[in-house]
Amino acid sequence: MSHPVSPLALQTYPDLPPIAGVRLATAQAGIRYKGRTDVLFLLMEPGTRAAGVFTRSKCPSAAVDWCREQLGGGAARALVVNSGNANAFTGLKGREAVARTAAIAARAAGCAPEEVFVASTGVIGEPLDAGKFEGVLEDCAGRAGSGASHWTEAARAIMTTDTFPKLATRRARIGDTEVTLNGIAKGAGMIAPDMATMLSFVFTDAVLDAPVLQHLLARGTRQSFNCVTIDGDTSTSDTLMLFATAKAGNAPVADPANPRLAAFAAALDDLLIELAQLVARDGEGARKFVTVEAEGAVDDASAHRIALSIANSPLVKTAVAGEDANWGRVVMAVGKAGEPADRDRLAIWFGDVRVAVAGARDPAYDEAAASAVMQRPEVTIRVDLGLGTGRARVWTCDLTKAYVEINGDYRS
Amino acid sequence: MSHPVSPLALQTYPDLPPIAGVRLATAQAGIRYKGRTDVLFLLMEPGTRAAGVFTRSKCPSAAVDWCREQLGGGAARALVVNSGNANAFTGLKGREAVARTAAIAARAAGCAPEEVFVASTGVIGEPLDAGKFEGVLEDCAGRAGSGASHWTEAARAIMTTDTFPKLATRRARIGDTEVTLNGIAKGAGMIAPDMATMLSFVFTDAVLDAPVLQHLLARGTRQSFNCVTIDGDTSTSDTLMLFATAKAGNAPVADPANPRLAAFAAALDDLLIELAQLVARDGEGARKFVTVEAEGAVDDASAHRIALSIANSPLVKTAVAGEDANWGRVVMAVGKAGEPADRDRLAIWFGDVRVAVAGARDPAYDEAAASAVMQRPEVTIRVDLGLGTGRARVWTCDLTKAYVEINGDYRS
Repeated sequence: MSHPVSPLALQTYPDLPPIAGVRLATAQAGIRYKGRTDVLFLLMEPGTRAAGVFTRSKCPSAAVDWCREQLGGGAARALVVNSGNANAFTGLKGREAVARTAAIAARAAGCAPEEVFVASTGVIGEPLDAGKFEGVLEDCAGRAGSGASHWTEAARAIMTTDTFPKLATRRARIGDTEVTLNGIAKGAGMIAPDMATMLSFVFTDAVLDAPVLQHLLARGTRQSFNCVTIDGDTSTSDTLMLFATAKAGNAPVADPANPRLAAFAAALDDLLIELAQLVARDGEGARKFVTVEAEGAVDDASAHRIALSIANSPLVKTAVAGEDANWGRVVMAVGKAGEPADRDRLAIWFGDVRVAVAGARDPAYDEAAASAVMQRPEVTIRVDLGLGTGRARVWTCDLTKAYVEINGDYRS
Repeated sequence: MSHPVSPLALQTYPDLPPIAGVRLATAQAGIRYKGRTDVLFLLMEPGTRAAGVFTRSKCPSAAVDWCREQLGGGAARALVVNSGNANAFTGLKGREAVARTAAIAARAAGCAPEEVFVASTGVIGEPLDAGKFEGVLEDCAGRAGSGASHWTEAARAIMTTDTFPKLATRRARIGDTEVTLNGIAKGAGMIAPDMATMLSFVFTDAVLDAPVLQHLLARGTRQSFNCVTIDGDTSTSDTLMLFATAKAGNAPVADPANPRLAAFAAALDDLLIELAQLVARDGEGARKFVTVEAEGAVDDASAHRIALSIANSPLVKTAVAGEDANWGRVVMAVGKAGEPADRDRLAIWFGDVRVAVAGARDPAYDEAAASAVMQRPEVTIRVDLGLGTGRARVWTCDLTKAYVEINGDYRS
C-alpha cells in the first residue's frame, strides 16, 4: 500500500495557523490500515456555517447523501473523515453506518447529529463498521487542538494512496478585518473534474452566511478542482466543503458579489487552486506535473473541454511519461474532443517550443529543444485553436507504469 | 518497435478465398520500417462500388479527407494503404502527398486518380514522401494475385503496433447466388468507438450499389467497430471501407431493407464483429479480452454509454490487469457515465459470479469464485441497471504496464 513520495511533492509543507472556533484531532480507528491514523475529528463552535459541492456521480456514497441532506440547515459543529473505507455502494448498511457515525460524533461534540458532516474515502463496497468510532471520537474531542501539527496530522489521516499530505493557508481582509483560511485535501486516483473531485475541507474564521459560502465555493471550484484530472474517473465520494466559524468579527456581507468580498474570494480561489494542484502533483504514479492550456477556442467552455480531452488522453499522458514530444497525439486529442477545431489553424507548444503551426509541423521545429522541455518535471502543453478568444487551463500528471501497478493491486 | 504476440491472439489465421475482381500485392516502400512490408496495393476491376465510414475527429488525416471526397463517385479501382506514417496533420504537404499517391496508383492501375482510395497509419505530423511509391505500386500491379497468402500478407503490411494480422471471411447468399466477403483490419492503439476506428477494409464480389453498401456498412459499424475501445483515444485516420466488385452475378437489390439482403447483411455484421474483436484482442499491452455488457438501462443508447464508461475507465482496466474483482470501480464507472442509474437497483457480475445486488455486495459473494473468473484470459463484466430494457455490449482489453511501455517510447 505504501508508495514512495511523489517526486512532484513540494519540499516543505506550510505551517497552518489556528482558525478561531476550530479544534481537531486524529486517531487510529483500525478501519483498514494498521499503524497509521485513519480518522479525523474536527470540532467547530456554535455559529459555524457550511457549504459544500459534491460528486456528480449517479452512485454517490452514503456519506455524500448525508452531507447533501444536512447542508440545508447550513449549520455545522463537527466533521468526521475516515480513510480506508469509502462506505460507498454499501446499501442500507451504508446509510446506517453514516447515521451511527453522526450520532457518535454528535455525542462527542455536544451537538445534534444534523450538525455533523461525514466523509469517507477508500475501498468501495465494503461495509463500514461505524462501531469503530465508538470511544475514539470522544477521545479525540478531549485532546483536540488547533496547532500547526494538528493540521498536518489531519491532512495525513485522510490520505489513501496519497504520498504526501496536502495543506494550504491564506489570509485576506473583509473590510478592515483580517480573516484566515486553512485547507486540506487528499487525492490521488479516481480524480476527474466532474465535480469537486476527491476530499477537501476549507475552514475560515470569517463571518459569512451559508448562501454566500456556497456561492463562493461553487465559483472557486470551477477554476480549481474542476480543472484537475488524474485519470478521468469520477469518485463516488468527491466532497469539497467550506466551513466558516464566524469568529473573526468582520461585518457580515450578504451579497456574494459585494466588492468587500473580493479579497476573500480571491484568497479562497487561490487556496483552492493550490490544493487542486497538490492533488495533481500526487496523482497515482505521477512523475510529471502537466499544465494544459487551450486558447483561441470559440469560448471558454469549449476550451475547457479541449484541454480536458488532452489531459485525459492515455496516449498524451504516456508520451509525457516517456518524455516524448509527441505532438501528433495532442492533435488527436484536440480532434476527438468534439469541439469546433480547424486542423489548419491549430498551433501547439511544449513549454516555449512551438512544435506545430497552421496545421503542420513548425518549419523551425527543433526536436532537441522540444525533448529538453519534456525532460523537466513540469511540462506545459499549450494549444491555440485560432478560432476565438475562449481559454482554459487544467492540470494533470503523466500516466506511468506505477499508475498501473498501484491500481492493479490496490485491493489485494 | 516489435512486441511479443498478444496472448489473446487466435491460434490460427483463416485462409481467405479469392474475391473475383480483386488482386493485391504488398511491398517494402521504406516509409519508416526496415525489413518489413509497409504498403498494400489492391486492384479492383471496373464496376466496383465503394462505401466508407471515417473518423469523427475534427483533425482528420489528409487521406481521410481524400477518401471522403472520392466516395461521392461511388466507383473504386484501387486502394493504397501504407503503414509507418499517418500523413495526418501534415498541412498542404499532406494533401499533395495523397494526390501524388493517387496519381501514381492510378497510373499503375490504369484508372482515374478519383477511383483510388488511400489510407495511411503510423506517426502523426511527419511529412509522407509519396515519391517512395514511385515504381513500387507499378511493380505491385505486375505481380498482384488473389491467393490466401496475398490476403495474409496484406493484413501484415498494414500493421503498426499490432502483434498479429487480422483477417476474417464469410459466405452468404443473395437470392440463389453465393457471395464471399473478405476483411482485413489493423489496430491497435488510439482506438475508441467514436467512429469506424482504425483501418479496416472489406471486399465482396456481390453486385450491390454504393448507397446500399453505405447503408449496410454504417449499420454494421454501430454493432462492431463502434463497440470496441482500447484507450478512448480516437485516431485522426480511422477508416472502414467496403468494396463490392459486382462479379458474383446476383440480381441487384436496390433497397437495403429488402429481405433478400438479410443473409448478406448478417454475414457482414458478423465479419465486422470478428474483425472488431480481433482489434480488441490486440490492444496495446493487452493481457485480457474484456466484454462489458450493460442491460436494464433506460434505452440502448444509454446502455452503450454506460458500457463504454466502464470499458474506458483506467481504474476498471487496471483492476482487470491485476486480476482484481474490484467491482467498486464498476460502480464508480456507472456513476460517472452521466446516464440514468439508481445505485440501489444496480447489480454487477464478473463472469457468472454476481458480486453486487440491490446497491450492495451480494450477500452470497464468494471472493474465491470472483478471483477465479478474473484469472481467465477472457473476462465478462455485466451490469444490470434495473431500470428498463436497454442493452449494449462492448469489447475492450485491460490496461497494463506494457501499454505504458509501448506508448511511452513509440516515437523514439
